[in-house]
Amino acid sequence: MKFDLIHSDASARAGIIHTDHGDIETPIFMPVGTQGSVKAVEQRELEELGTQIILGNTYHLYLRPGVDLLKSVKGLHRFMSWTKPILTDSGGYQVFSLSDLRKISDKGVTFKSHLDGSMHFFSPEDVINVQRAIGSDIMMVLDECTPFPCERDYAQVSNKLTVQWAQRCQKEFHSTDQLYEHTQALFGIVQGSVYKDIRKESAAALTSLGFDGYAIGGLAVGEPVEVMYEMAEFCTALLPANKPRYLMGVGTPGNLLESVERGVDMFDCVLPTRNGRNGMVFTRNGKMNFRNVQYRADESAVDEECGCYLCRNFSRAYLRHLFVAKEILALQLASLHNLTFYLWLMKEARRKILSNEFSFWKKELMMRYHNSIVTA
Amino acid sequence: MKFDLIHSDASARAGIIHTDHGDIETPIFMPVGTQGSVKAVEQRELEELGTQIILGNTYHLYLRPGVDLLKSVKGLHRFMSWTKPILTDSGGYQVFSLSDLRKISDKGVTFKSHLDGSMHFFSPEDVINVQRAIGSDIMMVLDECTPFPCERDYAQVSNKLTVQWAQRCQKEFHSTDQLYEHTQALFGIVQGSVYKDIRKESAAALTSLGFDGYAIGGLAVGEPVEVMYEMAEFCTALLPANKPRYLMGVGTPGNLLESVERGVDMFDCVLPTRNGRNGMVFTRNGKMNFRNVQYRADESAVDEECGCYLCRNFSRAYLRHLFVAKEILALQLASLHNLTFYLWLMKEARRKILSNEFSFWKKELMMRYHNSIVTA
Repeated sequence: MKFDLIHSDASARAGIIHTDHGDIETPIFMPVGTQGSVKAVEQRELEELGTQIILGNTYHLYLRPGVDLLKSVKGLHRFMSWTKPILTDSGGYQVFSLSDLRKISDKGVTFKSHLDGSMHFFSPEDVINVQRAIGSDIMMVLDECTPFPCERDYAQVSNKLTVQWAQRCQKEFHSTDQLYEHTQALFGIVQGSVYKDIRKESAAALTSLGFDGYAIGGLAVGEPVEVMYEMAEFCTALLPANKPRYLMGVGTPGNLLESVERGVDMFDCVLPTRNGRNGMVFTRNGKMNFRNVQYRADESAVDEECGCYLCRNFSRAYLRHLFVAKEILALQLASLHNLTFYLWLMKEARRKILSNEFSFWKKELMMRYHNSIVTA
Repeated sequence: MKFDLIHSDASARAGIIHTDHGDIETPIFMPVGTQGSVKAVEQRELEELGTQIILGNTYHLYLRPGVDLLKSVKGLHRFMSWTKPILTDSGGYQVFSLSDLRKISDKGVTFKSHLDGSMHFFSPEDVINVQRAIGSDIMMVLDECTPFPCERDYAQVSNKLTVQWAQRCQKEFHSTDQLYEHTQALFGIVQGSVYKDIRKESAAALTSLGFDGYAIGGLAVGEPVEVMYEMAEFCTALLPANKPRYLMGVGTPGNLLESVERGVDMFDCVLPTRNGRNGMVFTRNGKMNFRNVQYRADESAVDEECGCYLCRNFSRAYLRHLFVAKEILALQLASLHNLTFYLWLMKEARRKILSNEFSFWKKELMMRYHNSIVTA
């Protein structure tokens, strides 16, 4: 994996990540395909809408379909018939958010499957090897994602462990080979909750280890949005310019643009797909809730400026009918549209960075986004 | 609407139904789009797999989105962005199967909405006017679909009412105009339960009224399959050769072929989509149940001879994973495949009728279908 920083517009960056499965133009949004499928969207549709990379989840894929199966089918790309890059998170977040019971020690984390209650153990080395079996282009280290609020002492202790684990992950990464034909990269994850000195310690330790890219973790977990922006800005300034920066689990369209402005290159979030399945649609004119009666007889396109299958062919009234009638097609069309919007947002952001207009464009778009037909 | 009978191979028929929305080559299977969407399948996918006509449901569409909305958006074709023919059933079947409370009189049927418990009334004239609002290319008369078993006396009385209603539907049909630019046709429905003399009476009354086509109703409601075939064969022999014949709500691949052999031209059934959503997949080699562990690591295509998106791109192991993981994509892919199979079955049947090989081909295919990998 190689990252080329093409251009900066103040702190906002346009770059290219080169992988064996193709290039990724940053800033980029990565649709979330937790269990080997982006919910309600076909792989050919992801390609159609210009998806350059998707996310998979190590915790989920480890439990189902499992490491043995992933190895026997020669990795996730082949299993799900996806030829572009895949990033997998390490499963740390899911261990902490989905498992009833979990016990952290220096050795790793013991957890209970949310599926069948069975007990499992992830060492830092294990998560590397699971990701070797998955064959993701970009792997993540095992970390502890601290909650919000988080006591300073806990954040400090937790970060020490996260840094130790990162080191062990890196060692395992360097002492193992990829299982399939393509190379894999490894990202470190900066933690430290809302404490700048701990964040700084974390970033320093990780950059001295030297990773292919750096994620900013432990944000978007309930802290005020200003704190999230402040922390993201603080962290990007500490990270090397020649490596991609990934803000994990973020966020709304506004969150993405504010973070791009603060030097973030990569994003993933379930919002466009999960909220889409609940009837919330993102457009240039703000959010729309299609459970709302106001769209009952509205024959206009969901977003006239959008070129997706939904907006080219169907009316707001039809989409609302599909949601009210609980038709699966509602989930398909809303997910497709929301991903189209998120990908457009990042593509347009990149264009504006390249022409040094990012900040002005962002302000204009957000004014329009927040002051139009917000009905959700 | 015009029907051309192209060729007969014994009693099996190949024909073309001409409508303002295009031609329909018979024998034909019509995917069921109850509420203005074929569940889990996009309209462009229906086109891709060669769908020539879909079914809509008058009862459901009357309740939701409702007649006023359908009129304001100028009909179902435009609402759901579907440019090929649509057939709507009259809603009679749903009134009898979904409504808790229903009261039949000469005037029509009073029923309680399964959605909100509200009371509604359908006269024979009403169902014509609802179908005018929908704008279906082929409308059905209001009928009473008798259950199985059904007392002879009840079947007789019920059929008298069904014939009266058919007459009133026809009168309303002739005294009203289409609301949109395309013409609409009206089919009668032969009832009479398992009683040949009542079936005969029904067919005689309806053919003397003269409809654009004739449905055979009241079958596939729990009677033995031999009785269904016997009744279908008996009815088709009574119906004019120059009009299409539609066996409502049928059925399995075997049911379709046996009925084609007995002179039926048109079919609709929820089996391919509903069973698909439950993990049951139809192939040339029989049914497969993808909840079954035997497919866990099976890297072969679901059906090697099928050209659908699922079979071209994904393995049995992946489809099973999607079902086990409760991914919406499982429903999408299985529905798409099953419809592809059903449409292929009718297309191939037509080809074999045209070359006078239908009966032999049917036998061979059914031997293979029933003796291969039946695992469901």
